[in-house]
Amino acid sequence: MTQDLATPHVSSVDIEMMQRAIRLARKGRYSTRPNPKVGCVIVANGHVVGEGYHIKAGGPHAEVHALAQAADKAQGACAYVTLEPCSHFGRTPPCAQALIDAKVSKVVVAMVDPNPQVAGKGIAMLQQAGIEVVTGVLQTQARALNPGFFKRMETGLPYVRVKLAATLDGKTALANGESKWITGPQARTDVQDWRALSCAVITGRGTVQRDNPSLTVRPQQWAAYGRDLQQLSQLQAPLRVVLDRQAKLTPSIQMAQDKQPLLLVSQQDYRCQWPDWVKTEQLSQSDPDDLKQLLELLAKQGINEVLVEAGATLAGAFVQQQLVDELILYQAPKLIGNDGRDLLKHDALSRMEQVSLLTCIESRQFGVDTRLILKRD
Amino acid sequence: MTQDLATPHVSSVDIEMMQRAIRLARKGRYSTRPNPKVGCVIVANGHVVGEGYHIKAGGPHAEVHALAQAADKAQGACAYVTLEPCSHFGRTPPCAQALIDAKVSKVVVAMVDPNPQVAGKGIAMLQQAGIEVVTGVLQTQARALNPGFFKRMETGLPYVRVKLAATLDGKTALANGESKWITGPQARTDVQDWRALSCAVITGRGTVQRDNPSLTVRPQQWAAYGRDLQQLSQLQAPLRVVLDRQAKLTPSIQMAQDKQPLLLVSQQDYRCQWPDWVKTEQLSQSDPDDLKQLLELLAKQGINEVLVEAGATLAGAFVQQQLVDELILYQAPKLIGNDGRDLLKHDALSRMEQVSLLTCIESRQFGVDTRLILKRD
Repeated sequence: MTQDLATPHVSSVDIEMMQRAIRLARKGRYSTRPNPKVGCVIVANGHVVGEGYHIKAGGPHAEVHALAQAADKAQGACAYVTLEPCSHFGRTPPCAQALIDAKVSKVVVAMVDPNPQVAGKGIAMLQQAGIEVVTGVLQTQARALNPGFFKRMETGLPYVRVKLAATLDGKTALANGESKWITGPQARTDVQDWRALSCAVITGRGTVQRDNPSLTVRPQQWAAYGRDLQQLSQLQAPLRVVLDRQAKLTPSIQMAQDKQPLLLVSQQDYRCQWPDWVKTEQLSQSDPDDLKQLLELLAKQGINEVLVEAGATLAGAFVQQQLVDELILYQAPKLIGNDGRDLLKHDALSRMEQVSLLTCIESRQFGVDTRLILKRD
Repeated sequence: MTQDLATPHVSSVDIEMMQRAIRLARKGRYSTRPNPKVGCVIVANGHVVGEGYHIKAGGPHAEVHALAQAADKAQGACAYVTLEPCSHFGRTPPCAQALIDAKVSKVVVAMVDPNPQVAGKGIAMLQQAGIEVVTGVLQTQARALNPGFFKRMETGLPYVRVKLAATLDGKTALANGESKWITGPQARTDVQDWRALSCAVITGRGTVQRDNPSLTVRPQQWAAYGRDLQQLSQLQAPLRVVLDRQAKLTPSIQMAQDKQPLLLVSQQDYRCQWPDWVKTEQLSQSDPDDLKQLLELLAKQGINEVLVEAGATLAGAFVQQQLVDELILYQAPKLIGNDGRDLLKHDALSRMEQVSLLTCIESRQFGVDTRLILKRD
């Protein structure tokens, strides 16, 4: 299915139109959650007659936007969709039916929906109505649009990114804790983008007590660095999650002042009263796998992509428990020496075979700093 | 002088020919020391009629090779030389006189020789003989051919590169010392090239006692990775230097078995007897600046470029004493965690302003590892 170009039915126009649909889908990147990003292009007689993307859960799907734009021209046309059209009534009517009603003659789908409520049923509906369906066109690229949605559907866990920032010798601060700033303004602004792309941002009590951060997306700062203002206006604020096992935090923390989604996860009851809009959840006590439990809990709430912005202890635990899909490491061209604070706390390793191996999939400059994106080998 | 293209006398042919001379000069990179790398191209009627480069100290200079090839065609020709022709009798007669005798009509020089024995005298000789002289063509590039030679002439210190290899979190080994191998074979072979390019390789007693290395250039391993065999055959083995302040090492070390240049630098007399070919030097005791003293001692012996291949203590001291011109850092895409061994030992810093700032001038892949070349800001 990944050998798209070898599939006999697929033309260069199909590839081009699906690329266009994928670009459209990306426009929903700050707003579709918990839904996947989806784009749709409708082509009649070699011309694009309609296109659209899913903007917001509860709002119209990509196909509905595109069909509305195409109107009568959809009849006999070909629809390109990055994900199998849905077959069920959710908050909106099924898109497969909308395509049938619009009398399109062909539907090209990048990938089958892993959502058990759809999973091939949309395609079957279309075929039963006599519509030609081609699947697997640019499947790899379409999958990469929604790593979290697919991972959640397939494994019950969100896609986990861990953000780290350190010097070349792996230090995050001086011994006395001074760390403002290891990285420069471009790198710090880029973090805002990752936050905005994420359904949830996870941190630990240590970071909250030490830095008292807000962990919100700050549109002003973000817009100043040339980000897209239209997408920005659609932004759905990510859920901020604090792991506070002993329930020690109190409502005086900055995160409880910013009225944005906040979830406190502990193993004990809080003795203090949190504002109504702050949610709390309890993990089962003394579960050694509580990070996995935390991730499962978030997935059940529709969290697809998670950004861990934590200190050495919590970030180290995510790495060592092999719960990380992607590491985003900002490296500052600085050296602090052995006396500085370490990037990751870890149990001691006794053999080189136990060392975490990664593959660098991207390296990019942000001012003087370098951002590496790494995946687990 | 660096605005080469703005100089009225300089044509695109001049630039092209000087680039050719610089490429030729580089061919001497493993063999000219303590002399600088120099290339020469002789052009008559738009054609290259002779070219050459300096291969080995005591052998002919670049101009002599090029004039020999040009023979009678040198008369009325233009000579491009990456460094001012010498004016004095050293181990060979002055090249300025050779150019005059060959009756060239013009000499284009990339940069004036900072060697006080030359320093403009070569150019003056040519001009007094009625030859047109243009200077400053591709001066920056020509200077970069010989960073060590020029630094030594100007400051009495060699150009210092520190080679480091670490994980992304700045660790060089597990807590138990296991470190074979942090980086892969491509990166380790590349280190051979830096050794071969250096006049001296410096290490410390700790590394010798822990790893018992030979620190030689191993042509077999090197050639296997596609290095130039012709240049390899000209290789002058670098001087291996061990800093052994307390004179604790004994002739059983591997470095004293390989019969290649070895210098032991201590603050005390050795009680043991070293083989004849092993040199020893003493630094003045209790000089807090003994690393600078060591570098001065090496510069006096004609050492232009030094590679420090040492452990966290000695490498950290070079960094903290600001004696490093270039850092060569191999990063393995691995994470070891806080328990691993640190890259650099350093006195504690109390303010971020004390942190060493670097500029990354090159990033390149060697297998899965990345090699960063960094300069001090």
